[in-house]
This record gives sequence, structure tokens and C-alpha cells, in this order.
Amino acid sequence: MEQKEIDGVLDQVRAALEHGNIPGAISALATLHPADRAEAFADLPADDQDEIFPKLGNEAAADLLVEMEDEDAADAAGHLPSAQLADVLDEMEPDEAADLLGDLPPAQAADALAQMEDRDDVIPLLGHPDDTAGGLMTSEFFALRPQMTAQSAIDFLRGLNREAATPYYLYVVNRQGVLIGIVGLRDIIISRPDATIESIMKPDVIKVPVGTDQEEVARVMTRYDLLALPVVDAEGRLVGVINYDNIVDVIEEEATEDIYRLANVADGDLQVWSPIMLSVRRRLPWLVLNLLTAFIAASVIGLFEATIAKLAVLAVFQSIVAGEGGNAGTQTLAIMVRGMALGEIQFRDTWRALLREAAIGVMHGVVVGILVGLGAWLWRGIPILGLVIGLAMVGNLIAAGLAGTLVPLTLRAMKLDPALASAVIVTTVTDVVGFGLFLGLATLFLPLLIPAGG
Amino acid sequence: MEQKEIDGVLDQVRAALEHGNIPGAISALATLHPADRAEAFADLPADDQDEIFPKLGNEAAADLLVEMEDEDAADAAGHLPSAQLADVLDEMEPDEAADLLGDLPPAQAADALAQMEDRDDVIPLLGHPDDTAGGLMTSEFFALRPQMTAQSAIDFLRGLNREAATPYYLYVVNRQGVLIGIVGLRDIIISRPDATIESIMKPDVIKVPVGTDQEEVARVMTRYDLLALPVVDAEGRLVGVINYDNIVDVIEEEATEDIYRLANVADGDLQVWSPIMLSVRRRLPWLVLNLLTAFIAASVIGLFEATIAKLAVLAVFQSIVAGEGGNAGTQTLAIMVRGMALGEIQFRDTWRALLREAAIGVMHGVVVGILVGLGAWLWRGIPILGLVIGLAMVGNLIAAGLAGTLVPLTLRAMKLDPALASAVIVTTVTDVVGFGLFLGLATLFLPLLIPAGG
Repeated sequence: MEQKEIDGVLDQVRAALEHGNIPGAISALATLHPADRAEAFADLPADDQDEIFPKLGNEAAADLLVEMEDEDAADAAGHLPSAQLADVLDEMEPDEAADLLGDLPPAQAADALAQMEDRDDVIPLLGHPDDTAGGLMTSEFFALRPQMTAQSAIDFLRGLNREAATPYYLYVVNRQGVLIGIVGLRDIIISRPDATIESIMKPDVIKVPVGTDQEEVARVMTRYDLLALPVVDAEGRLVGVINYDNIVDVIEEEATEDIYRLANVADGDLQVWSPIMLSVRRRLPWLVLNLLTAFIAASVIGLFEATIAKLAVLAVFQSIVAGEGGNAGTQTLAIMVRGMALGEIQFRDTWRALLREAAIGVMHGVVVGILVGLGAWLWRGIPILGLVIGLAMVGNLIAAGLAGTLVPLTLRAMKLDPALASAVIVTTVTDVVGFGLFLGLATLFLPLLIPAGG
Repeated sequence: MEQKEIDGVLDQVRAALEHGNIPGAISALATLHPADRAEAFADLPADDQDEIFPKLGNEAAADLLVEMEDEDAADAAGHLPSAQLADVLDEMEPDEAADLLGDLPPAQAADALAQMEDRDDVIPLLGHPDDTAGGLMTSEFFALRPQMTAQSAIDFLRGLNREAATPYYLYVVNRQGVLIGIVGLRDIIISRPDATIESIMKPDVIKVPVGTDQEEVARVMTRYDLLALPVVDAEGRLVGVINYDNIVDVIEEEATEDIYRLANVADGDLQVWSPIMLSVRRRLPWLVLNLLTAFIAASVIGLFEATIAKLAVLAVFQSIVAGEGGNAGTQTLAIMVRGMALGEIQFRDTWRALLREAAIGVMHGVVVGILVGLGAWLWRGIPILGLVIGLAMVGNLIAAGLAGTLVPLTLRAMKLDPALASAVIVTTVTDVVGFGLFLGLATLFLPLLIPAGG
């Protein structure tokens, strides 16, 4: 759907609302795909939203809540009386209902849950952390027994509610509920009607335990190109299924989190249009942390204040050495963090990675060191200044490669997110090394520098 | 599959190779899932790879090539005689064959294509840019006619090669090949056998033109939770289908590209273990570009060299103002770039976004400005220095918010990637404004600063 079509419908909705015509507004919205409808709905003023939402009907309200941002959905659902909320939740997939319940105030969630018809499907899904296999899975899946025939499986599918989601795969479980096989819908269709499921199923099933981290879930589903991934408990019993559309969200979430953390934004949920005060609360602490580390770097400069007092031109060049180190360190960091997210690097690869980045640092250092040395010499006419800045640059670019590699690997070995705070640490290292090396060398060579430039 | 299982199989493969037992090595590899097999194969020395690959058999070789990294696959395929390569390509899905052909030297690709049996499926896919809908689509899809009955559709599916991929959806086209509807596999199964396809299909099909950018394709498929997206030509004729597994790759690719570009790594294909010289070639130009902009910032400091010569402590604090501005600008940039990638912000939102980031900049500036002012005052005992650095910080954090918003929006309005070079430009702005404001204010207040601290 094009943006202008959504805008066109929005104009109709607004026109209807101006005349107090709520049913008209609702039927205009209904012409949109649910995803577009949620976007259009979110663009309406809060008052209009509050007026429309309770009158939508349970199924339409459920569709809308599923497509809305989590916070907005919790807000809209929170305004419904709990009996109506229970009916709306009954219209959702169990995992979606569980997600929404988790975002509501506990008392209201308990109230609505108690009044739900399908609560037995939803209860087992509550209590799993959102970012694990258990938090992503749905309890709505199709389990066959190995002795069933292809024909009885088809009859079983025919008997399902037409509205239920199409299963991509059917799972086969034994009497204890242990997952023992998988069979595709088409394999069933093209088999002889009296063939047993056992004879057409594949016994090797890729599966994950219920506590698996969502990043690992995404990695498994992506690696093996799976449409759905079964989730098992400690005894190997099938307890749920994760569908591919949840994985796309996980991949986008994890990528956003990495991008944000590398840029010192602590909260992956922050968005362009998040409330201003929320943005400030999530960003300001990192700026303050950076300020503290900036004072550390500044105190290194402070050690050489006497040198700078004799030769102010050093203040002109010190930032070049430190800044370029920060840039090189950030490059290494980005590649390492992304490599870890995509499963390309393990902790056992540390030495190999360190040597590699050190070698790259040397090469970058030599080239950039010569360029900056020549630049400084030509600009200021002090050859020895070029030598000092060039040498400091070589050292700092090597430090950048090492810090950019070691920091994320160490964070991960400590079971922390490799992207968390790593940019702060790496740039502090390159600032300290950069300022220290450049001003330290300049202090050493000061007698040679002053007569020429002082 | 666990890493240790892959490692176990690798040990068996190596043991077999030591005894020159190629068939033994191949059958050990065959116990792995194709994705794991490709990883294990990539871990073998190049000599062993060259010995194993031609003896794999066409289907196994095709499976392996599909799972390998593009460059490695082109390299391995390039070593096959063109008749054998043609047979291997015939075992692949048409879109996979087209991708591999696109990575081979043109003469060899033309040679292999000429000898392929399925070349008519592959030829229409060649010549579409890799990063468009045409480059992502496969020509292997299932099109039904509206007059067919559900039973004849099932018979048609039964008649398909068992190895062919299961279709998620079936498309309905008219006599001219124009896409007029879509029907799910289960809808066919549960319909009366004599129902026509026209009566059970949904006529509203979400589709994209063949030239659509891959980012837009990913956005549409994610937004509407589609397993497959039909691709049409200018006349609305169905020419291909994009499957969801390609989209996961696109999303990861685009996220990697954004992360890299924000970190000044120009090439999204660069990986942790890319050849060292390739890494240097892709990263060094950005370091050199950064060096040039660092000289611009340094020349701003140079304007105030006389001030610094009189009061060296300014050199200690100048980097705090500039660096903190860089951090705040990078935060804004990350949120803007991610918001654009996920479709949350358009160019028409510029004013609203600018005002928002300016407001955030003021709030950050006031808090950080007071903290840095107090810090400087307490550390050096010069209250007026605290005032100067605090004011400069407020100004620079506002500049950071504005630059972090304007630069990516402007790049996108110019049809460039909003992440490309934006970090360089934003940090140059915050360096120039930071150094200029702080040293400029210090020069103004110099008579007040010197008696106290000189």
C-alpha cells in the first residue's frame, strides 16, 4: 500500500470524525490492510483514538492491537473494561495475547486472563522472558501421532477453524508428547492416503530448548532457512513453535540494539518519535558517562600543560592523533560486533583476531602516520613535529585495533553484550594513548621543537 | 547442530583425508545439514577443498555452493569444467543459479549457461541488479488459472517433482499472465473439490514492480508478514516470486551496511575474517578522509593559538567540548538512520525532527554544561572557565542534534544512503563548532580568565 493511499483513507477518517460519524470512520479504516490501519490509527489524535477503539468490535480491535507498537497497544487495551479486553484477547494468537498481557499492569492482566476462554493456551506462555524461545513461541501448533494416516491428517486439517493460521509444518509427537518427527503439508497431500505419518515424516528435527536466547533462535532459523522452529522442554516434549515472522522482528531488534549501543544509546526501543523526555532519560546518562571519560583523557593532557604552554601548536595537533585513533577503533569495533552477532567469531579466535587487527593497525598507522607527518611539516614547517605526530599516530592506530578487538571479546566472555559500552571504552583508550603518546613524545623532543617553531 | 558436532565431523573428514580416502571424507560431510556442511567445508585447507569438490556429485555440489559465501562459491564453481558446472547449476533453484552465474567471469558464465538444461528459467533472471526485486526473485513459482477447480489444483501439485520447494502460496493469473489473485495451499485442501480457484482466491494481492529496491522489498514483506512476495512487470504480469529467506539476508545485509557506514567502513561485505589487504583497502580511505576533516578542525584551533599560548589550560578542556558534541551527534545520527531504515521518518518530517532534536540538545546541553562547568571550576579553581566551557557545551550539543538530524535527511533527499559519510560530516561539524565556540568564548573572556588562572 502506498503512503498516499493511507493518507487518502486518513482524510476520509478525519472527515467522518468531524461530523461525529464514528461508524463511517471505522469503515474507512477497515479498507486498509491491518498493518496500514495501525499506522493510520496511530496518526489520529488521542481523543479520536479513544473514541474509535472501544467501538471497533473484538476481532478488529485484536487485529489492530497486534499491529500497534507495544506501548501504544498496552495503552489502548488498558482503557477497555476487563470483560471486553478478555474477549479481544481471545481473538488473538496465544503468543500475541501473552505478549500484550505482559505489557499490562499485573492486576488488570490477571483480571482479563481470568475471564478469557482460551486462557489455558495463554497461561503456559506467560512467565517466559520476552527475549527467549519461550517468550517468542506460540502454543498454537499442530501435532500429529506417528500412527495416523495421511488421509486422517488431511481430515484433521479440514476440521480446523478456517481462520486459524496455516501451519507450515506439522510436528509428530509420541505418547509422552516428545517431538519425534516433522512433516510438510505437501508431503501429506502427495502421499498415498493410507501411508502412516511415521513413514513420511523426517525424524531429524532442528529444535531449541525453551530458555534459548532470541539471538540464538534467530541464528538457527536463519542458518537453516526455517519457517517455524519447534521449542521443547527439558524432557524433549514439544511445548511451542516459533514462527518466522517473529524472527524478522528479532533480527531487526538486535540490529537496532547493536547500532544504538555502538552509538551510546542504551535503549534499543528508542525511536525517532519517542517522547522527548524518554529520549533524554535514555541518552543523557551515556553523555554523562562519556563526560567522565573525557575528564580522564583531559587529565592526560593536563600532565603536559607545561609543554603546551611552551609550544601552543601542540594543542592544534593533539586532537588529530586522538580522533583518528577513535575512528579506527570504531571501525574495528563495528566489524567485531557485527561478526559476533552473525556468529562469525568466537572467544577462542581472540589471538588470531588480535594479530590480524594489530597488522591492520600497523598498515593504517604507517600510511596515516606519513600523511599526517607530512601535513604537519608542510603546514607548520617543523619537520620534527611531523615525525612526532607520525610516530604517535602509528602507535595509536595499533592501540585502536587492539582495543577494538579486545573490548568486545572480553565483554562477551563476561556474558555481557559485546556492543554495550564498548565504544566508550575504546575511545577512552584511543584518547588516552593518543594524547599521551603525542604529548609525551613532544615533551621528549621539546628542545628540538622549540628552536624551530617557538 | 552444535558447534562441537560440526567439529567432530570435521575431525572424521580430516582423518579420512590423511589416508587419501576422499569418499570417506565426502560421506562424513554428508551427515551434516547443508548449512553446517558448508561451514565445515570452508574450514578445510584449500587443497583438500579442491580435491573434494569435483567428486561431490552434482546435487551435493549444488547444495554446498548455495550455502557458501558468494566469493567462495564463485571460486569453487570456477574450478569446474563448464559441462559439469552446467549440470550443477541445473540442480539449483533458478534464482540461485542466476546469482552464481553473476559472480563468475562472463565468458565462463556464458559457456555454462549455454550448456544448461534449465537455461530458459535462468535467463530472465539475469540482468536484474542484485539489490532489486528482480535480483531477489525466482522464476520458479506456481501459477493457476481462475477456472481451475480445487481438485485439479491438488492433482497439479501431486504431479510436481517431490524435490521442488513447497509453495507457500499459489498465484492466479489470467490469460495474459496478469496477476489477479492469490490462494493458500490449505484453502485449496479444505475447499469442495469442484470449487473454482476464482471462487476461493483473494483478489487483493500485495506485489512489487521488478525494479523495486531490496530495502523496500524487505519493508513490504516485513510489514505485511509475507512468506513470499510476487513480482510483476510494467504490464502487471507475474514474472517472479521473492521468498522470505532472501529477505532475512537483505535485512541482515542492510543492518550491517548501516552499522558499518556509521562506523566509517565503506563496504558492507567486509567481515571479521576478510583478507587483511581487502580490509585495509576498504577502511584506509575513510581514515584518510577523516584525517582531512581533522585538519579542518585543527585549523579552527589554529585560529586561537595565541589564546592557548597565553592560557595552556584551554588545551586541556577543548577536547571535552568537541568530543561530547561528537557523542551526542552520533546518538542522534544512529536513531535517525535506523528510523529511516525502518521507515519511521520521511523528508517531510524534517522540521518536526529538527525541533525535537534541538529541544533534546538544549536539555542535554543544560545538564552536561552545568556538570562540565562545575567540574572545570572545581578542578582548576577558575569559575569563569566553568562558565565558558558550560556555554560552549550547550551550543555544541544543540549543533550536534541539528547536524545529526539534517545530515542524514539531506543525504536521503539527494538519493544517497543516509548513513554514508554522515558520521564524518556530523563529527566535523561538532569539532568545528566545539573548538570554535569554546576557544572563541575563551578569547572574549581572556582578560577575566588570565588574572585568575594565568
